Order: sequence, then C-alpha cells, then structure tokens
Amino acid sequence: MALIVQKFGGTSVADAQKIKRAAQRVAQAYKEGNQVVVVVSAMGRTTDELFDLAHQITERPPAREMDMLASTGEQISIALMAMAIHALGYEAISFTGGQVGIITDSRHTKARILKIDTKRILQELDSGRIVVVAGYQGVDAYNNITTLGRGGSDATAVALAAKLKADMCDIFTDVNGIYTADPRIVPEASKLEKISYDELLELASLGAQVMQARSIEFAKKYNVPLRVRPSYNESLGTLVCQEAKEMEDIVVSGAAVTKDEAKLTIRGVPDRPGVAARLFGEIARHNINVDIIIQNIGSHGMTDVTFTVPKDDLPEAVDVAKRMKEELKAQEVSADSHIAKLSVVGIGMRSHCGVAEKMFSALAQEGINIQMISTSEIKISCVIDEAQAERALKAVHKAFELHKVGERTGVRG
Amino acid sequence: MALIVQKFGGTSVADAQKIKRAAQRVAQAYKEGNQVVVVVSAMGRTTDELFDLAHQITERPPAREMDMLASTGEQISIALMAMAIHALGYEAISFTGGQVGIITDSRHTKARILKIDTKRILQELDSGRIVVVAGYQGVDAYNNITTLGRGGSDATAVALAAKLKADMCDIFTDVNGIYTADPRIVPEASKLEKISYDELLELASLGAQVMQARSIEFAKKYNVPLRVRPSYNESLGTLVCQEAKEMEDIVVSGAAVTKDEAKLTIRGVPDRPGVAARLFGEIARHNINVDIIIQNIGSHGMTDVTFTVPKDDLPEAVDVAKRMKEELKAQEVSADSHIAKLSVVGIGMRSHCGVAEKMFSALAQEGINIQMISTSEIKISCVIDEAQAERALKAVHKAFELHKVGERTGVRG
Repeated sequence: MALIVQKFGGTSVADAQKIKRAAQRVAQAYKEGNQVVVVVSAMGRTTDELFDLAHQITERPPAREMDMLASTGEQISIALMAMAIHALGYEAISFTGGQVGIITDSRHTKARILKIDTKRILQELDSGRIVVVAGYQGVDAYNNITTLGRGGSDATAVALAAKLKADMCDIFTDVNGIYTADPRIVPEASKLEKISYDELLELASLGAQVMQARSIEFAKKYNVPLRVRPSYNESLGTLVCQEAKEMEDIVVSGAAVTKDEAKLTIRGVPDRPGVAARLFGEIARHNINVDIIIQNIGSHGMTDVTFTVPKDDLPEAVDVAKRMKEELKAQEVSADSHIAKLSVVGIGMRSHCGVAEKMFSALAQEGINIQMISTSEIKISCVIDEAQAERALKAVHKAFELHKVGERTGVRG
Repeated sequence: MALIVQKFGGTSVADAQKIKRAAQRVAQAYKEGNQVVVVVSAMGRTTDELFDLAHQITERPPAREMDMLASTGEQISIALMAMAIHALGYEAISFTGGQVGIITDSRHTKARILKIDTKRILQELDSGRIVVVAGYQGVDAYNNITTLGRGGSDATAVALAAKLKADMCDIFTDVNGIYTADPRIVPEASKLEKISYDELLELASLGAQVMQARSIEFAKKYNVPLRVRPSYNESLGTLVCQEAKEMEDIVVSGAAVTKDEAKLTIRGVPDRPGVAARLFGEIARHNINVDIIIQNIGSHGMTDVTFTVPKDDLPEAVDVAKRMKEELKAQEVSADSHIAKLSVVGIGMRSHCGVAEKMFSALAQEGINIQMISTSEIKISCVIDEAQAERALKAVHKAFELHKVGERTGVRG
C-alpha cells in the first residue's frame, strides 16, 4: 500500500464543481489501494477577496491578524473537499494546519515550517480515512495562526510528503506539466516527461512559475518524488525527481525568460581591492538581492560595475549606488529597467560542449545584443533588451530543437 | 477598573464600515478605563453563504465538516475587528474559540460549552490589550472545531462574561432594546429600561427573538448583567438583570405572539389511567417537543386530548398520533397548523390579580376565540386563530397599557 500526497491549487478548487472533480481524483487514488493525504489551497480568488476586505478596514493590517484572516481561505476549502469526498462514499476528515501539528516560526505572512507532528494524520490514515489538510498555514509555538507566504500550499504538501515518507507527491495545477518553454510565448513548446530537481529549480527561479523554489529545494533535500499534473485531465504531467543517467542525453531541457529584474551600472569605479565588497555589502544591508554581477577588466585604474536587482528594488538600489558613487569617488550611475533575462537550463550541459556558442549564435542571427552573461553548471543566462524577450526565447527554443524534447520522450501535452 | 464583554451580532459587523463603527465603541469602552473582551459573529450573510456552498457540494454534509466550514465566518470577523481596533491606535489580539480554550462537547453544529480556560485572555488583558474572541465556536476534547448552534455567539459572550466575572455583558444588536411587543406589529410598543431574566426567558421562548433562551438561562444562573443595546446609536438599551423590588409594580412587561406551533387533537380517547403517559411518551421518543396540553373532563368514559407541537414536527406527530389512535382505540385525529400563541409576561402577575381576566376580555371584545390556555407563574398564553394573531397582540398590548411601560420608566426607543 502506497502513501500519496495530492495537492490541489486554487484554480483546481475554484468552485463547487471543480472541488467535486478534484474529489473524484482523490477517491480514485484511494480506490486503487493507496493511503491518501490531500492538501488544498484557498478557492480561486478567495485569498485576494480576503485581502481586499482587510484593506477596506486599514492600510496597514497587523501581520498576525492578516494570517488569522487569510487562513480561513484554506479552511473553507478543506471542509468542502472533505464533504465532496464523503459524498462519493469515502470517509474523509479535514484538518487545519494547527490541528495537524504543522509548527512554524512566528514570522507572520511568511512563516517557515519548523516541524510536523504526524501522529493524528497517521492515526486517521490507519483507520481508513482520507485526510484533508489545509495548505499554506500552521501555528507558531504560542498557537498563533501563521501562513507560509507565496507557494505555501506546495510547501505544506512537500513537507508532509517528506515527513510521511510518501511514495508520491502529486501537485495538481492548471497546466499540463512542465514545458520546455512557456507555451503562451512559444506555442511549439513541448511537455517534459521528467525533469531533475536542479533543472526545475533553475527554471522556477528563472520565472517558469510552476512551483516556488523553496518547495522544490525541500523536495530535493528529502528526495520526495513530485508530479506536476493537470487537474482537468488524466495526464501524468511531469515527474520531478533526482537526476537519472538518461537525463544527461538531453543537453537543454528548457528555456525561460523573465522581466522582473533591472540593470544598474556604476562607471569609473576605482579599481582597487575592497571596492566591490564595500558596494555589494551596502546593497545587501538594504535587503536587495543582486543576481548577476559583471565587472570589466579595468584600465587607467578605473572599472565599470554592472549588476541586476529586482525591478521593485531599483529606486532604493539607485539611491544606495549614488551614495556609494560619492563615497568611492566613482563617475556615474545609470539604470535600465527595460531588460529581460533569457536562460537555458539542462543537466546535460555538464557533459556537452558548445551550448553557450549555440545560444549566442541563435541570438546573433536574430540581431539581438547580449548585455550581460551569467553561467552556472547547468544554466546559461543572457541579459537582453526587454522588447526582444519573446523573439529571443523563440529563437533559442528553436536552436536547441526543444520542441522535440517532449516528443523524444514520447509524452506530449 | 471594570471588565466588560461586548458582543456584536452579524448585522452589527455586516461590512467594513460597520466593523469600523463597532471598533469605535470598543475603543470608547477601553478609553473609559475598562478591560474589554469583544465577541463577534460572522459578517451579515457570511454563514448563509458558506451553507449555500456546502449544499452545492452535497445534500448531506457531515456535521463535523459543517463546523469546520461555518467557523471560518467568525474567524474572518475577529481578524477584521482586531485590525479595525488596531487602526484606531489600540492594541488588539484576536482568538478563535479553540485558541482561547472554549471547550465544548462533541455534538457538532449544536455543541454546548463545557469549560473555558481564560488564562490566555487574562494574560492579554493584563498586558493592556483588547481581546477579540470568535463567537459561536469552540473545540471538543479531541481538538475538533465545533459550533454552538443558533444564538451561539450570545452563548459565547455570556459564558465568557460569567467565567471572567465581567461587570457587564453588552449585547449589541440591530434593535433598540427589548420592547413591550414586537414594534413591527405594534408600532406603539415601548422600550423597557429593565427586565428580569425570567421575563426575558418567557419572551424569548415565546418568539420575541431578541436572544436565545439558553444564553439568558446561563446569564441568570451566573448572575451576569446583560444589556441589549443598539449598535447604531448611544442608547443604553435594556438592562437584563435579577428581579428587583420595583419591577413588581409593572404587572405585565411584555406581550408576544408566535406562529411556529401547530395543534393536534385526538378525540374519543378512553378516559383511563396511563393513556396520556403512553401517548406523550411515544411523542417524546420521536424527539418532538410538546408545549401546551389540554385534556377535557371526560364523559361516557371518553375524553379529547389536544396539544401543540412545533410546526416542522407536525407531519411526524400526526403519524405517531394516528398509530396511537389505533393502539388506544381512540376515534379521530385532527390537526391544525393555522394557530398562533399569544402570551403576556410579567413578574408583577404573581402579586396582582385579574391579569387573565383582562387578557380574555380584551380578546373577547375583538371577537377572538380562545382555543387553548396555558399559564405559568409569570405568563399567560392563549392559542388563537393564526389570522387573528396581530390583531390580538395589539388588543392585549392596549388593554395592559404597555405603551406606557417604557414611558413610565423614562426611557423610550
């Protein structure tokens, strides 16, 4: 008998009809002889509606009370899901995060799971029940309700799967699986049958928006097999797992483009030790995440430093950079928020050469200028003009023949 | 420093604007130097909407899951109320029933409070915070969420007030206080400044619909002073308290009419010992509450038995009566659901004569036939034709000059 965790996102439980359909999938897994733990998000736009209500009351609601409010969204879903399973003739019991022993730290609205006491869940599973757990929430050591922030329901599902040593964690969502590129931009993108945690991590942080990085990291750490599946058909979606030998045959698994960064350049920085440490130390003190950093080889004792930051943090980063310009006696600060970051990802890169060259050629043929380059073991990223983002993604997708990746593995969306 | 419990019903927190207004009343009480515990119901129609959702899923939702669902309504209210108080510059902290140690039995959707652990509330009050508690809910011994059924938020407020030995329990509602009769039927009804628990109990169970009987009983038992007040103006409403000497001067404090009962007659019942016990024992076994019972003096060894039951239970009561007719060899069963019960209430009745006569005369003058009569120490009830209910209430209200009761005490709605 296998133990399966099934997570249904907000769009998969958006109304009574969809909840009933999701309940049928749960019942199906149970009928097939599995123990089933279901994790549910809030219905569709419920969380947004609750936030709207809060902002009708006050501009700055206390975080603790926001969590008290927001957590009701998932509580509604679990009750309805348990009812729907019950209506199909199976015993189901719902639990809030607190009831099921999901203990977090006290950082309201973005808490982290510290531990899970699975006693009650195991007890209910052993008595033949399907257990329905509210995603996105827990309680702190003082029994205050906390929420886990963006992607919190995935975090709940993966953490429960890890703790329960589940055989599979199904993440039901409104996409068919993980694609070689965003199908809204690249219609010929193909669905991957399998992808490694590391590749998905790079894609997630690159804006593929399938799952939040923290849940994938957690799944990787505890080796929880994930399946990103559509809730609206029987497709098995994409399996996310440890790297396997055959995966290396695929040099590049996917490409993604993100527009949420901005570029900052400080020209004429004195080229001496400690300057970079001083500059980026100051940026870090303002809690601004720097992604790519480029420093050219200097001449005449001067150099230029260019780096990217989240678009939202640009005004603050510019302030810091201007102060640093004075302090370091640099020449000029300039900023550009009209950039995009294009990346290709694949564990096969490690054992294959020429990936960077192929990417750069594809962009050159399209007349797209590369402003910055950054690479990791399994990823190459280029910063380009924002206006060329979609065209660049299509060109790269075509150059690596990514439309064949899904075909080759015999599964297509 | 006094401790005040303030309860706001659903209409008093129906939207963001009303929640803000309620928060101002809370802040006012706090500013005046009181410790304040606020109990809140779900916003306006929230509970109905949640029930609608449940019934879109299944006709027969399990009671445990209904409680899981319904309890979110109050949880939303407490979070918003705490935010609203916070926005006024005061520290507030919200708690679900479970968090604040309201332990109930496990009878889902109609649980009873078993005990309250006030440690956390007292701790927060002592640190200067306003404590906001979700009405209508608790947890059972296994930490399952339970709800208290109709009037549950009043029950929470009164139970907390009793346990905390509060100096006052304010029940904020959408009426100006307690009236000598329903002002929608009798426009000249006047508001009472004071009423005893016992009188309100009779009025509540008679359909005055201000508060549920269980909360009044509880307040009486623990001598919790209640104030039924409007949330929309500064009126002090009506004080509900122990009987005081001067209350006896008012012979009749109020009149009420209810249409939720039906009448059942079994004719030609053998007039011998044990027959009534057999009949009403059988009715009780079907969990049907019998209110008034009339048995005429028999003749020729036969008698007629008439009794009233809740309208909803009439079909089942008729079934039972027909089976009993066969068993007891009685002659005929007839039912009438078009009846109303008119009652006058007042502790002054105990020391004044002629109340029944005045009531009967008033009805006679209006040509209204009395079908059944029932009396208690402080109440006289008459069953009449449903169509004459409003006219009868007006006549009785006038006969006892109830429009002067409020005037006499110097307070008028």
